[in-house]
Parts: sequence; structure tokens; C-alpha cells
Amino acid sequence: MTNFVWHNPVKLVFGKGTIAELPNLIPAGTKIMLAYGGGSIKANGVYDQARAALAAYDITEFGGIEPNPRYETCMKAAAIVKQNGIGFLLAVGGGSVLDATKFIAVAALYDAGDPWDIMEGRKPVERALPLATVLTLPATGSETNTFAVISRDATGEKLAFGSPHVYPQFAILDPETTRSLPLRQVENGIIDTWAHVMEQYMCATDHSALTLRQSEAVLKTLIELAPKVKADPADYTTRAELMWCATVGLNGSLGLGAAAQDWATHMIGHELTALYGIDHGRTLAVIMPAVHRFQITRKQPRLAQCAARVWHITQGDDATRAAQAIEREQAFFQSVGVPTTLSAYNIDAADAARQVAARLAARNAKLGEYGDLGEDEVRAIIALAQ
Amino acid sequence: MTNFVWHNPVKLVFGKGTIAELPNLIPAGTKIMLAYGGGSIKANGVYDQARAALAAYDITEFGGIEPNPRYETCMKAAAIVKQNGIGFLLAVGGGSVLDATKFIAVAALYDAGDPWDIMEGRKPVERALPLATVLTLPATGSETNTFAVISRDATGEKLAFGSPHVYPQFAILDPETTRSLPLRQVENGIIDTWAHVMEQYMCATDHSALTLRQSEAVLKTLIELAPKVKADPADYTTRAELMWCATVGLNGSLGLGAAAQDWATHMIGHELTALYGIDHGRTLAVIMPAVHRFQITRKQPRLAQCAARVWHITQGDDATRAAQAIEREQAFFQSVGVPTTLSAYNIDAADAARQVAARLAARNAKLGEYGDLGEDEVRAIIALAQ
Repeated sequence: MTNFVWHNPVKLVFGKGTIAELPNLIPAGTKIMLAYGGGSIKANGVYDQARAALAAYDITEFGGIEPNPRYETCMKAAAIVKQNGIGFLLAVGGGSVLDATKFIAVAALYDAGDPWDIMEGRKPVERALPLATVLTLPATGSETNTFAVISRDATGEKLAFGSPHVYPQFAILDPETTRSLPLRQVENGIIDTWAHVMEQYMCATDHSALTLRQSEAVLKTLIELAPKVKADPADYTTRAELMWCATVGLNGSLGLGAAAQDWATHMIGHELTALYGIDHGRTLAVIMPAVHRFQITRKQPRLAQCAARVWHITQGDDATRAAQAIEREQAFFQSVGVPTTLSAYNIDAADAARQVAARLAARNAKLGEYGDLGEDEVRAIIALAQ
Repeated sequence: MTNFVWHNPVKLVFGKGTIAELPNLIPAGTKIMLAYGGGSIKANGVYDQARAALAAYDITEFGGIEPNPRYETCMKAAAIVKQNGIGFLLAVGGGSVLDATKFIAVAALYDAGDPWDIMEGRKPVERALPLATVLTLPATGSETNTFAVISRDATGEKLAFGSPHVYPQFAILDPETTRSLPLRQVENGIIDTWAHVMEQYMCATDHSALTLRQSEAVLKTLIELAPKVKADPADYTTRAELMWCATVGLNGSLGLGAAAQDWATHMIGHELTALYGIDHGRTLAVIMPAVHRFQITRKQPRLAQCAARVWHITQGDDATRAAQAIEREQAFFQSVGVPTTLSAYNIDAADAARQVAARLAARNAKLGEYGDLGEDEVRAIIALAQ
């Protein structure tokens, strides 16, 4: 069990009707930017609920934040924040809107040049405007962590940054807001949550026995929930549990005591989204089984543990069980309704392998728990996903 | 799944050698009261580590805080805090020292009469001095919650209070500090942690599927750890996992989504400690199986779930499995080395039943998930613990 610091000051307000709590959470008189995406919050009533709750506040709206939010869009919002003297950013929507809002919160106070320098790690985050979220799409865990992923048109880059300055002050999680999500996004959210948990769990080096069991708790709950939400998409309890799984999956608690994590799947997935426009969650379903197959030997004990505890496979030796854990994972993704091969997207695996590996190599990215998955290994992983 | 608010701002600094982090956690120039108990921190080196780390600070020591900390002791400390203009309280020790420190932090700023009024619920907590802890005894979870239990000689009362004002700013959890604990305290800590988890888990009303699985994760980990710590008390990893279980068990996360909790065991246990001086953890081992037996019918589905998932009992109907869950729990307590009957303490159950029930009735206490365990029910529960 490795030393750690755990500090997550986000106030989570979870449940039905909680959007009405907004005026109890933002000081009266605050000038707010209400940031949102493509307008789904207008169709599903969330926008009306938020505006009604904030009727007494001075609100500037900024809509049109896209999935895989763009630097260019964020910079427009940051300029408006500066012009209007806005003091608080409220992201209403999914992880993309919130990630954009985190970057806007930093960019609006950044005066040392181009804030993209932060994304490239050349400059630290020293301050940010206070921000919070009404989350309508459970998946990224962004509501309870310090990270954001932003894409840039000019360079085709998709990069992540993180800072305690962009912890949301609060996150309102009303599962009712997720009922109107297209099924495709529900599926993506399940895969994304699964991947977040696995990337903290599937490590061969030192970990915490308790944390591992808590990760298994989320995985088992997701396995129970997936068929339920497909059978009865309107069921409140199922939606609530899914939303809570997504938050717990990436609030940091499932990495406590681990010596390392393995985010190779996310890193490769981001490149597939940037190159081919595949939904983020869907890239993970393609890549994660391949990442696990590529590393089956060195991750064998943990894969076997997953087989036994999550999939209740008690027959066979560790090698057999490890292989079965991956088979079951892939079958689970398929049962959710998400393809697990590049060919399902009419993508040539050899072409994807070459392009993704080259893009990661250009950034000197070394992926995985041991930081030793370079250009050759990434190519081999993608070949397993054809 | 019931609505909830989750907000736990305590910074946990966990692992070997972390006491040396103190100067990074307390602003330079702060006048600190270093509060501790009977002096075990001087024997095990924790005192020396803390003093060395805080060499540059103005320190006032206050030792001698007793197990089941007393109001009278706390009031002496509060007077010293006022006299010396102390601005920060550092509790070095176990849950009792920390609970006392929480009350001292409130009492030192309380000017509306006798701060015992807060314990009796007649006055709210409006402010408190900042406080933190170096925790040396994993059990109470006090390091990551807002609660404290204080006893008063004059009245023989043992009462709890809670307020967000007494969240520790940080908690240093160095498992190495627990290596020198007497075995008896290790045993007590395991039982206390188990009880905390169960009192949030063993509820028949609405709960969260994910939270229940996370509770089962702690219970299963405790079952694994108990024989290990007895076999090899010096093993760092086992100590670290136990310490982390104790914190997770009462940081509030295991109650999220639950409509109610059932703290009948703790409430009755506190009375047994007040009356007979039995260690807190040991009272729980006596009372919890009795509380579960008394409520076996209405808690049958959850008890059966516990049997299946925690104890891997898959045979028999729900009634059979529920009964077995209680048998296994009681056997587990005994395997830890803790008696599970009043007779083991030479206490007459009829006498205990009469006295405890009368004391709780005098405070109009109605215990349990449904708030319907009154004088008669408490007598019946204690009769089951004879």
C-alpha cells in the first residue's frame, strides 16, 4: 500500500429536484456565466430549471460548447468572461461542457501569454475563477476531479491538464436530467466509467486491498445496471446508480494506495477520436480489451483476481482466468451495445496503428503503468483491436 | 436511492513517514496546542516525531486526555487555549484525543454559557478553532467526520455532537504509529470499524446498490485482515489496510443513498461503557449480534444479502441465510479475540437491561433505523446478549 494524499473538497448535491438548490450554493449577487453545449438542456428542461433557480442572478449565457471541446471555443468564452466581469462559471451539461469550463476558468485569469501553454505543460495553473456544475451526463467524473481534456483545431491535438484550482465548488447531480439522454450516450457512459475504474485497478504493482475491492464493487454494479438501463431506460433508480458509479469511478478514491495507474486505453482512445471522430466511450471499448491482451502476462494476477471476484470464474489456473476476464470484458462491452473492433467502424487497423503510434511518438508519450509502451507497443496493441 | 449531500473536505495524508509533513500543513507562526492522551505517544516515538516536525512553532502541550474523554478535562484545555491565544489544535493520538480536541475547539470560542449545552442539543455550534490530527489508533473514523463523543462525570452522561465546524483540516495517518498498539486496542478497532460499516449497511429501507457493495468491500477486507494482524502484528501492509478501513468505514461515504441508518448498537454500547467501563469496541461485539437478532425479521433481506456476498453462504432461504449471517458475525468477533456476551464480563444481563433501558428512556431515546426501539425493545436486545 503506497503513501497517498486524499483531498476532494467538491460538494456533491445528489438526487431528484436538486437543481433548485442552486441559489443556496452560489452567493447572492454573483455574476455568472452559464455554459452549455448543443442545446439538449433546452430540450430536456434542465435549462429552464437552472434559469428559474437563478432568476435573481446576473447571467451571461455561453452555449455551443462541442463534444471534445475546442480550445478556440473556450478562448471566445474566456474573452466574454473578461469583458463582462464574470465571477463564477456554471457548467450545465456533460463532461465536455465542464472540461471546457475548467479551461475557461483558467484562461480568463491567465495573462502570461497563450493559455495553451498550460495544456502542453509549459506553464503551471496558478489561479482560476470559481466554477461549479449541473451535470447531465454521467461519464467523465470531471465533476469531482481536477482534470480536463481540450482539443485544438489548429494542431489537431487533444490534451489533458489538471489543477486543484479547477475543482468544482459543487456539483449538482440530478439523475432525472439523464433520462432524456440518447441511448448511445448512456452506452458510452457505462464504457467510460468501466474504463476509468479498470485503469486504476488493472495494475500489477503495489495497490490497496480495500481500494481494489471498492473498484470491484463499481464493476459489479455496472454489470448489474447495464441490462437494466437498456430494458427500462426511464427507471430512476437505475439512472441514479449509474450516475453515482460514474462519479465514484473517477473521484480519485479508486486509485488510493496504488503505486501506479495504467491509462494506456484512454491515451490511445483520445487519438482515435481525434483521427476518426469516434465517440470517446466507443474508442475505449475497442482499445481496452486489446491493452489487456497485450499485457496479459504481466497483469495476470490482477486479471485473474478480476475473473474470480467480478466474473465469478473460479475454475482454471491464473493464465486461463486472466484470459477469461478479458473475454468477459469484451462480451460485456458488446452486450452494452458498443462495438469492440476497429473494423466495425470501417477503419483499417494497420493505418490506425501507424497514425496513432506516430502521433503519440511525436509527443514522446510512453504509456501504461510502467511508462514503457512506446511506438512499437502502441502499434501492436492497435493491431489486436482490428 | 435517496437524495444526499456529500462534502468531506478533510485532507488525508496517508502513509509511512508522513508526520514530517506537518510544517507543510500548518501555516508558519501559528500558535499550536498539541493535545494528547496518557503518554503512549511518548513511548512509541510519535511525540518526538511531531515535536521535531514542529520545532519552529510555538507549542503548548496538553496531555492526559483519557479514553472516553471527559468534559471536565476538555474545559481545562479550553481555558488554557483562551489564556495563551492558541490558534490551532493538533490532536496526536486516537479517536478519544481527537474527539476531545473537537470539543475543546468549540468550547474555547463559546461565550454563550456552558458549552455542555451543545452536547445536549440546546445550542448550535457556530464556530470552532481550526484543528487537525496525527492519528495513532484507527477505529473511530473521527479523523474524517464532524462528530465527537464526550462524557461528563457530574451527570454520568456520554453524548455525541456534530458540526461541519469541527472537520479536521487534515489528518495524518501513518500506519507505522499503530504498530505499537496493544493487541486489545487493535481488536477493538476492528470491531468498531465493522460496527460502523454495519450500522450504515444493515438497513431495510432505501439504499444504494453501489454503496452497499462498497460496504461489503470493507467487511470482506476486515475479515481478511483480522487473522493477518493477529498472526503478524508488525506487518506494515496489514496495519495500513486496517487503518484505511477504519477511515473509509466512517468518512460518510458508506451512508450515501441510504434513507436511514441504524446506530442502535453504538447507542446501547455507549451506555454499557458508561455503566461498566467496558471498552467501547468490546461493547459493540456484545450488542451488535443481539441488535441483529432482535430485528432479524425486518432486516432479513439485507442480512441474507450479507450472508451471500460477505460470507459466501448461498444455500438456504433468506431466513436461514439471515440467521447464518449473524452467527458468522458473532463467530468473527470471537475470532478477533473479543467476547460477545455480557456474562464474559460478569455482568448480569437483567441488571444491564434495566439500567441501560432506563437511562436511554430518561433521554427519550428511540433507537434504530425506524426510531422505534424504546425502553422495552432495548431491554429485549440486552437480554439476547446475556
